[in-house]
Amino acid sequence: MSLDAVLARIDADLPQALERLMALLRIPSISTDPAYKADCARAADWLVEDLRSLGFEAASRPTPGHPMVVAHGGTGGRHLLFYGHYDVQPVDPLDLWARDPFDPAIEDTAKGKVIRARGASDDKGQLMTFLEACRAWKAVHGTLPCKLTIFLEGEEESGSPSLIPFLREHAAELRAELALICDTGLFEDAVPAITTMLRGLTKSEFTLRAADRDLHSGMYGGLARNPIHVLTRLLADLHDDEGRVQVPGFYDDVAELPDALRQQWQALAFDHGKYLGDVGLKIPAGEVDRTPLEMIWSRPTAEVNGIWGGYTGAGFKTVLPSEAHAKVSFRLVSRQDPEKIITAFRSWAESRIPADCEIIWNDGIEGSPASVMEIGDPAFEAARQALTDEWGRAAAFVGSGGSIPIAGYFKTELGMDAMLIGFGRDDDQIHSPNEKYDLACFHKGIRSWARVLERLA
Amino acid sequence: MSLDAVLARIDADLPQALERLMALLRIPSISTDPAYKADCARAADWLVEDLRSLGFEAASRPTPGHPMVVAHGGTGGRHLLFYGHYDVQPVDPLDLWARDPFDPAIEDTAKGKVIRARGASDDKGQLMTFLEACRAWKAVHGTLPCKLTIFLEGEEESGSPSLIPFLREHAAELRAELALICDTGLFEDAVPAITTMLRGLTKSEFTLRAADRDLHSGMYGGLARNPIHVLTRLLADLHDDEGRVQVPGFYDDVAELPDALRQQWQALAFDHGKYLGDVGLKIPAGEVDRTPLEMIWSRPTAEVNGIWGGYTGAGFKTVLPSEAHAKVSFRLVSRQDPEKIITAFRSWAESRIPADCEIIWNDGIEGSPASVMEIGDPAFEAARQALTDEWGRAAAFVGSGGSIPIAGYFKTELGMDAMLIGFGRDDDQIHSPNEKYDLACFHKGIRSWARVLERLA
Repeated sequence: MSLDAVLARIDADLPQALERLMALLRIPSISTDPAYKADCARAADWLVEDLRSLGFEAASRPTPGHPMVVAHGGTGGRHLLFYGHYDVQPVDPLDLWARDPFDPAIEDTAKGKVIRARGASDDKGQLMTFLEACRAWKAVHGTLPCKLTIFLEGEEESGSPSLIPFLREHAAELRAELALICDTGLFEDAVPAITTMLRGLTKSEFTLRAADRDLHSGMYGGLARNPIHVLTRLLADLHDDEGRVQVPGFYDDVAELPDALRQQWQALAFDHGKYLGDVGLKIPAGEVDRTPLEMIWSRPTAEVNGIWGGYTGAGFKTVLPSEAHAKVSFRLVSRQDPEKIITAFRSWAESRIPADCEIIWNDGIEGSPASVMEIGDPAFEAARQALTDEWGRAAAFVGSGGSIPIAGYFKTELGMDAMLIGFGRDDDQIHSPNEKYDLACFHKGIRSWARVLERLA
Repeated sequence: MSLDAVLARIDADLPQALERLMALLRIPSISTDPAYKADCARAADWLVEDLRSLGFEAASRPTPGHPMVVAHGGTGGRHLLFYGHYDVQPVDPLDLWARDPFDPAIEDTAKGKVIRARGASDDKGQLMTFLEACRAWKAVHGTLPCKLTIFLEGEEESGSPSLIPFLREHAAELRAELALICDTGLFEDAVPAITTMLRGLTKSEFTLRAADRDLHSGMYGGLARNPIHVLTRLLADLHDDEGRVQVPGFYDDVAELPDALRQQWQALAFDHGKYLGDVGLKIPAGEVDRTPLEMIWSRPTAEVNGIWGGYTGAGFKTVLPSEAHAKVSFRLVSRQDPEKIITAFRSWAESRIPADCEIIWNDGIEGSPASVMEIGDPAFEAARQALTDEWGRAAAFVGSGGSIPIAGYFKTELGMDAMLIGFGRDDDQIHSPNEKYDLACFHKGIRSWARVLERLA
């Protein structure tokens, strides 16, 4: 009955919740641009005030960059940490926006009402779903649901330079039993999802050098080694015809998907035709014996993210360049070790080039391993039930093809698992002009957290 | 005996010949830079005056760009046309020059005296070898050696935009029995050479398109097609492991080298180890069953001159780009047809890409075929003997890996074969700072033309 009261309170308070979100959206907290430094501080202060109004002990904590908002409140039950970020992406190109990105408005669209503004989805709207759930809980019960730490970052969109030092310095203060992160989305716009597998990432930029100067293809063409040819051959050989990465040992530490998860993913009936069709493609391009969801969630990849060499301007220059370059990244899964993968890639590449060529490695050996959450912890199943109740669709444990570094840092720095629950939709246009957040996602997001907190607390 | 007199006159007049060359070198006739337009005209006028002093009817003929110098003189014998160009390359970076590039001087070097200045070798020094030979001939005989047309261009270093229209408009006036072109070099710095095979050139720039926008490798990596992968596979497959171009029909119109020429080339004992070693390479990279000289002179090639795609700036961006790009050129030999080659390449490429990718061809189908001179014409053997006499080394019919467009245009526009004889050395640093022309090359170049004219006239 008390949950019903909290949900009813959320429904009744929605107009005020929207007003609060709009106030936060009006602050142009673009973290990457120094011109908005004061605005970032202002957004942090606004959140501190709001958290205090909920009974938190809250403060804007300085860093060499933008402040962290840290708040503590509640007692008893499970100690949970909630993470979100109050900074936003830049807005250019501004002329592609239909309205001022920092003048939020509710708009009617063919797919329902949306909140239109920079940060509406990423991540101000999402982080406010949690705060509004706490507010309704407090209004009904007079207290917060359990011992809560709120941790809101202001540098997520600019590489989080202060994050790891801050986590290390305040590890004892910040450590909780479980982290909740609200910066992800629904599955295919409708199915609630808890992200429990995140791929890691490592990368390598290199220069392939042949002659010690650029050569004229008239004088040397056919006789002298063209480093672009060597590079294209090398990169073409990175995958076999079945899409498997050819670096020796690449799959050694890759676990097969557990059967239970495989069945859950099959039940999602992922429409890869639509997913690819939305971006003008048709054919899954990964390992031929893997499903599309496995390709993006649970299989490692090798991707060339950049390539350049020779003359790339207008017109033609019949040059045989002395060098060609590439940037290659690897998405990692399971227990793949970033250093081991890069070292194996370097050895493989060096073993395949002609004796009068050399490879210069332009960066260090580093990267982040995959994060795989302990979904055996009953909290995960409890949260899944709570989301299922709210959305009327069986919530799923899903993977994420991308890295969400904060989840990894909570694990490596604080020894804390994270549960990633978010309500964004694929068409939210985060990082792009005309970002929006569906009003329904905001509303049901708040209700979702109330249900999750009721089960976890 | 009369040849000896001409050669003696050349030897005696060398100091004055050098003075004349230095006067021409002082004129900064950089054709590509509009700031030097008046200087180009001045260089043309200087040559007109000099040609008139030799008894030519000479004029500076206007074009939409820089003027052409056309002169007619002499009577009887074979009608020969001589071609050179009076314009020069830009001089930047100026700070790499040891002296003002337009303040020529004779310098002593470890390898002998050199004339140091922009244009000393390319092509003012070379074109003056012919004019000085005519001057000595006139001094001894009172007349020019035969009917001569002199045709000196002022736009060779800036793409020759006026050349073809001028040739067409004045075809009847310019057509001779044979063209002599002095814009090439000795073989390996010592062996006199007549260039009788010039490779043609055709090219293709294209965009390989996959998705209709850039994708995030976290969301799509492993599932979505990466156009850089498609492009590197395509370009890697352009050659097989033995270095042969894989475009169907590519070799259909490629003739084998005539035995006589093959023997002459073998006798040259080309030191490819040194040729490659000079630019930091070791291993011939072309077709495994061809000699290094064949690779650069008589075999066609496919070369990627430029490649780019994805993120190429500092740092990393885990993007799956929507497009990747390449510039590919083909050096052509024998009767290979540029249009046929490009058309075959396009078909081959399009047949090899996935169904959800496309290729956009960014340029037209054009190019220049190879030029192969009729060395059965006794004039070629006569010139070879003349050069052998002067240099004390058996002169060779050689190929040129590069295209020398004027030779092709004389053939296509005027139906006239060309004999390319030049005295440049590989270390002349043409197009680079500190260009030079060996004094010995200038002197023996003049004597060479006297001998060639004596045999051809």
